[in-house]
Amino acid sequence: MRRGSNQLRLADFNQAVVLDVLRRSPGASRADLQRASGLSPQTISNITRRLIDDGLIRESTPSGSTRGRPSIPLVIDRDGAFSVGVHIDPARLTMVLLDLEGEVRHQRQQRTPQATNPPQVTALIADSVDALIADAGVDRERVLGLGIAAPGPLDVQAGVILDPPQLPNWRNVKLRSDLHHATGLPVLLDKDVTAAATAELRSSAEPPDAFVFLYLGSGVGASVVIDNQVFRGTTNNIGEVGDLIVDPDAEQLEWSGRRGGLAAACVPEALVIQAARLGLLPLPNLNDYLAIDDSCTALCDLAAGGDGGAIRILERAAKRVAVGLGVLVNMLDVPRVVLGGPLWTRLSGAFLPVLPQHVARELVVARDIVVEGSAVGEPVAALGAAELVMDHFLAPNPSALMVGA
Amino acid sequence: MRRGSNQLRLADFNQAVVLDVLRRSPGASRADLQRASGLSPQTISNITRRLIDDGLIRESTPSGSTRGRPSIPLVIDRDGAFSVGVHIDPARLTMVLLDLEGEVRHQRQQRTPQATNPPQVTALIADSVDALIADAGVDRERVLGLGIAAPGPLDVQAGVILDPPQLPNWRNVKLRSDLHHATGLPVLLDKDVTAAATAELRSSAEPPDAFVFLYLGSGVGASVVIDNQVFRGTTNNIGEVGDLIVDPDAEQLEWSGRRGGLAAACVPEALVIQAARLGLLPLPNLNDYLAIDDSCTALCDLAAGGDGGAIRILERAAKRVAVGLGVLVNMLDVPRVVLGGPLWTRLSGAFLPVLPQHVARELVVARDIVVEGSAVGEPVAALGAAELVMDHFLAPNPSALMVGA
Repeated sequence: MRRGSNQLRLADFNQAVVLDVLRRSPGASRADLQRASGLSPQTISNITRRLIDDGLIRESTPSGSTRGRPSIPLVIDRDGAFSVGVHIDPARLTMVLLDLEGEVRHQRQQRTPQATNPPQVTALIADSVDALIADAGVDRERVLGLGIAAPGPLDVQAGVILDPPQLPNWRNVKLRSDLHHATGLPVLLDKDVTAAATAELRSSAEPPDAFVFLYLGSGVGASVVIDNQVFRGTTNNIGEVGDLIVDPDAEQLEWSGRRGGLAAACVPEALVIQAARLGLLPLPNLNDYLAIDDSCTALCDLAAGGDGGAIRILERAAKRVAVGLGVLVNMLDVPRVVLGGPLWTRLSGAFLPVLPQHVARELVVARDIVVEGSAVGEPVAALGAAELVMDHFLAPNPSALMVGA
Repeated sequence: MRRGSNQLRLADFNQAVVLDVLRRSPGASRADLQRASGLSPQTISNITRRLIDDGLIRESTPSGSTRGRPSIPLVIDRDGAFSVGVHIDPARLTMVLLDLEGEVRHQRQQRTPQATNPPQVTALIADSVDALIADAGVDRERVLGLGIAAPGPLDVQAGVILDPPQLPNWRNVKLRSDLHHATGLPVLLDKDVTAAATAELRSSAEPPDAFVFLYLGSGVGASVVIDNQVFRGTTNNIGEVGDLIVDPDAEQLEWSGRRGGLAAACVPEALVIQAARLGLLPLPNLNDYLAIDDSCTALCDLAAGGDGGAIRILERAAKRVAVGLGVLVNMLDVPRVVLGGPLWTRLSGAFLPVLPQHVARELVVARDIVVEGSAVGEPVAALGAAELVMDHFLAPNPSALMVGA
């Protein structure tokens, strides 16, 4: 095992409560912390001393406006701790380094290694994480852990990728423990859509929020936030919507997905098969996710350039996706739909002008429905994974499961 | 307005807390209540005195086994208060009278009045409620209120039935205030599937529970319980699943619903059209919900009697319903599906032997899935409506909206 696990002492519940108050109320004094936490002055004194020693918080300059002995404002030290989020889409690996103030300090995106054996993939991801931390120029000892967002189905309890249809060489991979051994960092594994909804909710301007998040990447998935809570499902596998039928009259594709299903409507593989049928593009090797991804980019470029055939393919895809979103909104009764993921960036130009009215037509109960792109953008799932790691170490009541912590 | 509103003083929060403890822990002493509630001995003394005066609780006999002055056990008086739940399905009106211990004391089912104007319907429901209370032989002064479970879409805030496709003469009916004026009782209005899920959850043996509830009546709807919480949607209109496509190759019916949709798969209207096409039954008047309901009963009887054509219709319906349930389970990641409603009683014989394996085949993530009929049975939505009324008056933090309380 490489070294790298941090030495920060973060297990204490009271300490987490104090840090949580400071994250929400920068500049609070020790007296403020005492009032907010209900802890004794002596406990607050000990905890703040320890947090300062650990470099997680620091004393700021009191404003001179009040009479008497001024109370010293305490603030989070943004360089005090970091977390890394890695989003594994079969075609694109997106990584972010998050600081203690919740800001993304560094990010990178690269092609997902198409290795045929899991140990090779694990090693390549570990190398990319090393490079991310090194490029960011932060102290590796202060990296709390690594969060992985991956397509399902997952066994989140065991930290295992089961058999995602989109990752054919990743059957029963113990990704959490493998990456822990490869990086020396504590690691958590969660579903891509759960991580994405987490980051989207944090960026939300108007809590309490409720929305459906539709993830578009090499695969399609959904998650749901109700009353500011991200639902993950009883086995943490929420949002398998690829088989949802959205077009009963859809053509049969040379493809394993369900005819007329939401996956057949919008995943890159299905779109490039449709484009090849029209002679717009040569059919790529369908066992090669990178080639499929490149073809899909070419298709979106053709549409953006005014190619009629490409535009019709994407318009039809938007209509079909709208049927799927209508089903989710009709079932869950939410006022907002957010779309994101590595494919969304390329589809949004064609989708956004038409999607809201298509979705509105599907609704059984008349309502104003907001349909929009992610406020976070393409790194949404990676950011969510990094936030889940921060929560694990810093929130008083974390829910995520982590190995090595 | 008829008289009948009760005189019970139930608005006090502390009193609700005390009553809630006693509903959960029958036989608690005043000292037990003090410990459980954190209230002062004087407050507990006042509240219990008032609850005894109001006839909501009574003193029981202390067991003589402890030394010293025995503490007096307090218990709920089941005759202290009642609530009425009415479930309006277009074909069947189901009513229950619930006592303070949560037991159904009386119930009745009748054909829903097919009146063409809402005031007439309101008057008929009010008469039925009067008859229910009279037949049960309880003191009308002790009936806390009336809960109505109705098909959506509803404006629950305003207590208005908007324009349910299954109730063609019920557009923008102010059912809550109309029934309050007609009965003199406080009234709440909620969606049929929300009420049904509430009652099913209360009857659940194994909390924390998570399940999808599929309502089968003149229409089809769904609700979802996660972590013991009934989700109602941001506009209280959860579960509009009739348009969910379950069979892309389905026949076009002479009917307004979506071809291949879940409603076309299983509502009585669609089933009797299919039966008439096969010559199994004469086509009933499709503007008459009672005639449709009777035809559907005849179809189910034919299948139970071994008629091949009728059996094939119901088997195909079960397969299609399974596709819809698969979509919901794949999306929401719940371990259990419960079916109920006035049509379920007639379909369960044909559905239950085949439905679990059909649903299992639809699942993307392999799991043990429980597919079963409601533990409550046909009055599930009426019971839930009555429970929502009890909660409104007796629970410390009720959520339902009620007029006249």
